[in-house]
Amino acid sequence: MERFEVNILGCGSALPTTKHFLSSQVVNLRDKLFMIDCGEGAQLQFRAMKLNFQKLNHIFISHLHGDHCFGLPGLISTLGLLGRTANLYVHAHPDAEKIFEPQLQYFCKMLPYKVYFHSFNPQKSELIFEDKSLKVTTIPLKHRVPSAGFLFEEKPKSPHIIREMIDFYHVPVSQIRAIKEGAPFVTGEGETIPNKVFTRPAEPPHKYAYCSDTAYYEKIIPIIADVNVLYHEATFSNADLARATETFHSSAAQAASIAKAANAGRLIIGHFSARYPNEQILLNEALEIFPQTQPAYEKMILKV
Amino acid sequence: MERFEVNILGCGSALPTTKHFLSSQVVNLRDKLFMIDCGEGAQLQFRAMKLNFQKLNHIFISHLHGDHCFGLPGLISTLGLLGRTANLYVHAHPDAEKIFEPQLQYFCKMLPYKVYFHSFNPQKSELIFEDKSLKVTTIPLKHRVPSAGFLFEEKPKSPHIIREMIDFYHVPVSQIRAIKEGAPFVTGEGETIPNKVFTRPAEPPHKYAYCSDTAYYEKIIPIIADVNVLYHEATFSNADLARATETFHSSAAQAASIAKAANAGRLIIGHFSARYPNEQILLNEALEIFPQTQPAYEKMILKV
Repeated sequence: MERFEVNILGCGSALPTTKHFLSSQVVNLRDKLFMIDCGEGAQLQFRAMKLNFQKLNHIFISHLHGDHCFGLPGLISTLGLLGRTANLYVHAHPDAEKIFEPQLQYFCKMLPYKVYFHSFNPQKSELIFEDKSLKVTTIPLKHRVPSAGFLFEEKPKSPHIIREMIDFYHVPVSQIRAIKEGAPFVTGEGETIPNKVFTRPAEPPHKYAYCSDTAYYEKIIPIIADVNVLYHEATFSNADLARATETFHSSAAQAASIAKAANAGRLIIGHFSARYPNEQILLNEALEIFPQTQPAYEKMILKV
Repeated sequence: MERFEVNILGCGSALPTTKHFLSSQVVNLRDKLFMIDCGEGAQLQFRAMKLNFQKLNHIFISHLHGDHCFGLPGLISTLGLLGRTANLYVHAHPDAEKIFEPQLQYFCKMLPYKVYFHSFNPQKSELIFEDKSLKVTTIPLKHRVPSAGFLFEEKPKSPHIIREMIDFYHVPVSQIRAIKEGAPFVTGEGETIPNKVFTRPAEPPHKYAYCSDTAYYEKIIPIIADVNVLYHEATFSNADLARATETFHSSAAQAASIAKAANAGRLIIGHFSARYPNEQILLNEALEIFPQTQPAYEKMILKV
């Protein structure tokens, strides 16, 4: 199994507590790191989790509330002090560049690398990043300001080659690539051996969805259908549902309903309001609806 | 003894480590709080030290490098979420308002209180704050950008009244204030009793000086003369003196020389470079010159 993990740097809501840092996560796909949100202190937690700053090239910002992006200038500045030369890409609402660029101009004049802001429209679901093993698609959310979640999706992998059958039919090395791509094999005697003799299907691609901050919003369900892991905000408990609605946040039960409707493998709840001394009440409310629920915590490493 | 303490929130240099937060301190004078510098994570440490956000009204920023001020937007935003209505004053270089105001406009539109930037000229020593018990004066420093330290100085206190003598001479209550202010007492018989009979001198006012970031700079010595406690940056060891000079920072030995020349009561060294796995080498170098030296650490509470 190739590595596909999510590192939780912070899972509190806007008001930090002695227990929770502000929103930030790092997706590790085969040792490439992708940051989601960058609340104040993200660089401190990044270091505390012993993640490798050199492996980080893309940062995705869900929305422009301070608790999701105030860590950017400090992180960018630290990467410079560490001697980075590779480009860094910040994927965010178009305003991010307008807001942060003057600050970077002032504080990071000597930066030995370039920061590029790639803007996306949080109102529609679109592919905003891909490389040979990963696609990142936005998930339009419903919040007080334009907000998007992110779907991290592995690309389909090549099937496994069955070594013994390759040897048995004396398949030349030059043909193995074609077989990996699905071709049959024609023997010296002109016999056609079907592809399935030589291959076992790869594991299905894994998917991770990050949905924070958002009110209860059923339109995301088809986009996140069948994800292995869903991180969904669960700021409030049922008792504070009015407050959730008013602030365009979700209750734990609402997060669980979304996970259930989307047929998610597991639900991780986070973005906990500071009003709850612990998250047991939120967890219990989610578990009633969706048993495969776990609460996020700082320094948690999730296997997708 | 009335409370005069310094809380160390962070004492690392620009690159945070798993051990050190970025520069920030809180001076507590008789339960009024004054923040000095506000590196990323200052609000997290403020809360972790269980300081009272409501008692904080003034923030003093030594210079506009990110590791001394990137925590401002998050702290300001959190104070708003906590329902603050009292004004907050940020004392800093004139550029601070230009740089942070657009960010506050964008992220803190609904702030229920006002933030005022009071600018000072870091090139000259001037009184930038006073109330009935405290004066704060700037200390021009020598750094890559305009930088000032801060001298926190208690105002002279009233002498103590000697209760027994007041009773002995039947001094009426109406005259006690005049005696506190130094007046003699004239008895019913016309006899003049000198003030010193009724009073014991108050403790001399205490002084705390914060000097970071700065190269070795003798011009500060007369300004900080006789402080009870001096916090002076000691970013580098003797072995890295060339690097100190190049970056306008000080070595631990230089910090100690300043403390000695200024006749400081105690020296606290801080702003440690991330290159030293512990500060023992820096402490040893300072101790050779100035024996009353201690290293700063996170969550340290210093009595001035």
